[in-house]
Amino acid sequence: MRHRFLLITVFALTLGAGQPPARREISLIVANGTVITVDTARRVLQRGSVAIDGRDIVAVDTPEAIAARFSARDTIDAAGSVVMPGLINTHTHAPMVLFRGLADDLALMDWLQNYIFPAEAKTVSPEFVRAGTRLAALEMIESGTTTYADMYYFEEEIARVTKAAGLRGVLGETIIQFPVPDAKTPADGIARTERFINEFKNDDLITPAIAPHSMYTLDEATLKACRALADRLHVPVIIHLAETKAEIKTSQEKYHASPVAFLESLGFWGPRTLAAHGVHVTPADIQILARRGVGVSHNPESNMKLASGAAPVEAMRKAGLAVGLGTDGAASNNDLDMFEAMRQAAFLHKLVSEDPRAIPAPTAIDMATIEGARAMGMGRELGSLEPGKRADLIVVSMSSARQTPLYDPLSHLVYVTRGDDVQTTIVNGRVLMRDRKVLTLQRDQVLAEARAFATRVLAAVKPAGPTKEQ
Amino acid sequence: MRHRFLLITVFALTLGAGQPPARREISLIVANGTVITVDTARRVLQRGSVAIDGRDIVAVDTPEAIAARFSARDTIDAAGSVVMPGLINTHTHAPMVLFRGLADDLALMDWLQNYIFPAEAKTVSPEFVRAGTRLAALEMIESGTTTYADMYYFEEEIARVTKAAGLRGVLGETIIQFPVPDAKTPADGIARTERFINEFKNDDLITPAIAPHSMYTLDEATLKACRALADRLHVPVIIHLAETKAEIKTSQEKYHASPVAFLESLGFWGPRTLAAHGVHVTPADIQILARRGVGVSHNPESNMKLASGAAPVEAMRKAGLAVGLGTDGAASNNDLDMFEAMRQAAFLHKLVSEDPRAIPAPTAIDMATIEGARAMGMGRELGSLEPGKRADLIVVSMSSARQTPLYDPLSHLVYVTRGDDVQTTIVNGRVLMRDRKVLTLQRDQVLAEARAFATRVLAAVKPAGPTKEQ
Repeated sequence: MRHRFLLITVFALTLGAGQPPARREISLIVANGTVITVDTARRVLQRGSVAIDGRDIVAVDTPEAIAARFSARDTIDAAGSVVMPGLINTHTHAPMVLFRGLADDLALMDWLQNYIFPAEAKTVSPEFVRAGTRLAALEMIESGTTTYADMYYFEEEIARVTKAAGLRGVLGETIIQFPVPDAKTPADGIARTERFINEFKNDDLITPAIAPHSMYTLDEATLKACRALADRLHVPVIIHLAETKAEIKTSQEKYHASPVAFLESLGFWGPRTLAAHGVHVTPADIQILARRGVGVSHNPESNMKLASGAAPVEAMRKAGLAVGLGTDGAASNNDLDMFEAMRQAAFLHKLVSEDPRAIPAPTAIDMATIEGARAMGMGRELGSLEPGKRADLIVVSMSSARQTPLYDPLSHLVYVTRGDDVQTTIVNGRVLMRDRKVLTLQRDQVLAEARAFATRVLAAVKPAGPTKEQ
Repeated sequence: MRHRFLLITVFALTLGAGQPPARREISLIVANGTVITVDTARRVLQRGSVAIDGRDIVAVDTPEAIAARFSARDTIDAAGSVVMPGLINTHTHAPMVLFRGLADDLALMDWLQNYIFPAEAKTVSPEFVRAGTRLAALEMIESGTTTYADMYYFEEEIARVTKAAGLRGVLGETIIQFPVPDAKTPADGIARTERFINEFKNDDLITPAIAPHSMYTLDEATLKACRALADRLHVPVIIHLAETKAEIKTSQEKYHASPVAFLESLGFWGPRTLAAHGVHVTPADIQILARRGVGVSHNPESNMKLASGAAPVEAMRKAGLAVGLGTDGAASNNDLDMFEAMRQAAFLHKLVSEDPRAIPAPTAIDMATIEGARAMGMGRELGSLEPGKRADLIVVSMSSARQTPLYDPLSHLVYVTRGDDVQTTIVNGRVLMRDRKVLTLQRDQVLAEARAFATRVLAAVKPAGPTKEQ
């Protein structure tokens, strides 16, 4: 019996050996983790591997199946950890990390007029923007963000630093009616934007965009000119929308319409348009945004900290809008940790709807990944772990005391995990951080440079000092 | 001239040398940090040291002044870090860390009746409570909590583990009308509580207490018996209060009074009484609580996650109530990180008051330290770094990318700091964690033990599995 069994085995092996199933050589396997795919079926592999070749994911399967099909030049062991799509921060102003904690707990106009605007007027320069973006990139890589949408000044500098750091960005040059550090007039700003777009057209990591600041800081002609440029050069548009009650009041007084309806009347809305905040939108506004395919960036922490209000996220999602998550600039958050944004989204909407079932953990994860990708018009390339998509993924540790025991990784990602738990960050197939060591930025130098700029910022404003008791 | 000056100097030194100013030998100096005292003047020393002898703080001053007066057997260098009072968690159910993430995002009754109650009925035992408390103690020490108020079953086991771990606790044995794992009847529970109180009377770390669960889970006779025991044995009382709208409805239907007013009618309220939540209290309720000197524990994360509502914290503080912060049990939070509680308190009250000045960072820090101490009737011993108080303090790192730059340490503690940034935790003068190494618990063993219990918990309930998309 034993001989016969052996004989059959040898025969089978001989057959196979005639044309050995050649294992395809690829660049990287992230192996043996709990893989949260966020694919259409929302598959979770309790033990899985992700095969990566160059910039793309080529397969997601059991470790055994991946090992049988592929041999990789590099392997990252994710045993005991979660492997998930990189987080997508759909709204920030990266260089504003240099203003974080400069002034908090103030009335909005006091904060803007006495701190943020003077600090920006006196300190924002290409050097400032580069230093701030490097710090922001370091923080994002360290906390698992792989793509971010930005709007600020000198956006071409932001793009160069972002590309060098290896991050993916949808980066919008800000257009605003009053003189700003990189443009004396909106026309100057639009001309600068066109040069910026041409520099980064067809870039693998950078999607250049135009970012008209808001309907209340721009006139009709400039808003229309921004839309025209975006249409002509085929780039996305990013805008602040209905963030505060003051904006609604201004819009109603000036145009007798909501901000959404006013912009609709200009022909401003279209696909590949990302509207940040959307706190104060009506059901009719939501219908317009849905019809136009506008993506929304929800920023729960900023909206709470600045007392802006709670966006009707559930109504927007029910209407079919893609609602991503954002941190907003670190001056109003005060960090870029997307795990905090997920937790805050879950907490905020339970509170305001008086329903603990609102924005459950899996939905918060969707919003930070696939819905964020869709909100930016990149749902086919980003936001989930699926063959053919870009290899943007993170490995997240699950071994801390606060993560013990582990019943449900989705719950833990939202309710007890921090950005600091991210071990490894991969963008476009390139490892940007491995075992907490960032490989594309000189950490100490980035921090020292940021601290040096802080001295200049303090000199530019009335020092806030330690905030005083109320 | 030069000689005369020297002469005087030598003369002075000779005088001093006759009786050299003997430096007092003490046990520990925490040196060179940014010291946030939370004393009456809310002094912040940009560079300061804390001198500790035995269980007490003996001085807080500049490093030079401390070095001149004291020589210490041990010194902890806190250069570049913040030194502040240990955080006080005024409400938790420590062993419930073993249920964290077991079931989330469910309607309250579904969550309680299908998960928490069955899990408790089938798994809560002295062994379970010990394992859970060890895990909770590990997490609290690692995230900078030095004192916690608790209410659960087998509280004597919780007390023993807490004392062994070196933490300070105000620990209330839960009394409830229906049969629970450690008591078949409320009378059994009260008898058990008396034994527990006698075991820990006059303990340096443990303050035993009685914890009638709530006005809606106890009858009048038991509520009165709990108050009588507390008065007779001179121990604190801890109770859940006005947490949900359902509780208000029950109280109105049954007693035609608010929970606060009903308990007032029983003569239940008195000093050293800690009421957890106080979400749905009226101005008249607040006046009763203020008149009776009741302390309140505010739990912003739990109140949001369970959709309970937003407690009127600003009104309570204005009425003179001491309002501390709590995490609640990890089944409804899902961690014990008091930095999250501070941030959440600041965010929540800005949102609900529509005022970004509500609960500014220094107030959130007050609530997590001195106000928490006062809420528990321990304001003279705990909650600030002042000579004569217990040496309960923490050293918090400020060097991460998300904490860069650093304009204001108070802002950073609330808006960008996590429990994981705590480097060193000291309670009653004893170092429980030093440079992230916990010295009083076997970390790996505690985590392994918790994971083993999780298997039993899963068997006790319909497995939640990965939560499903809404």
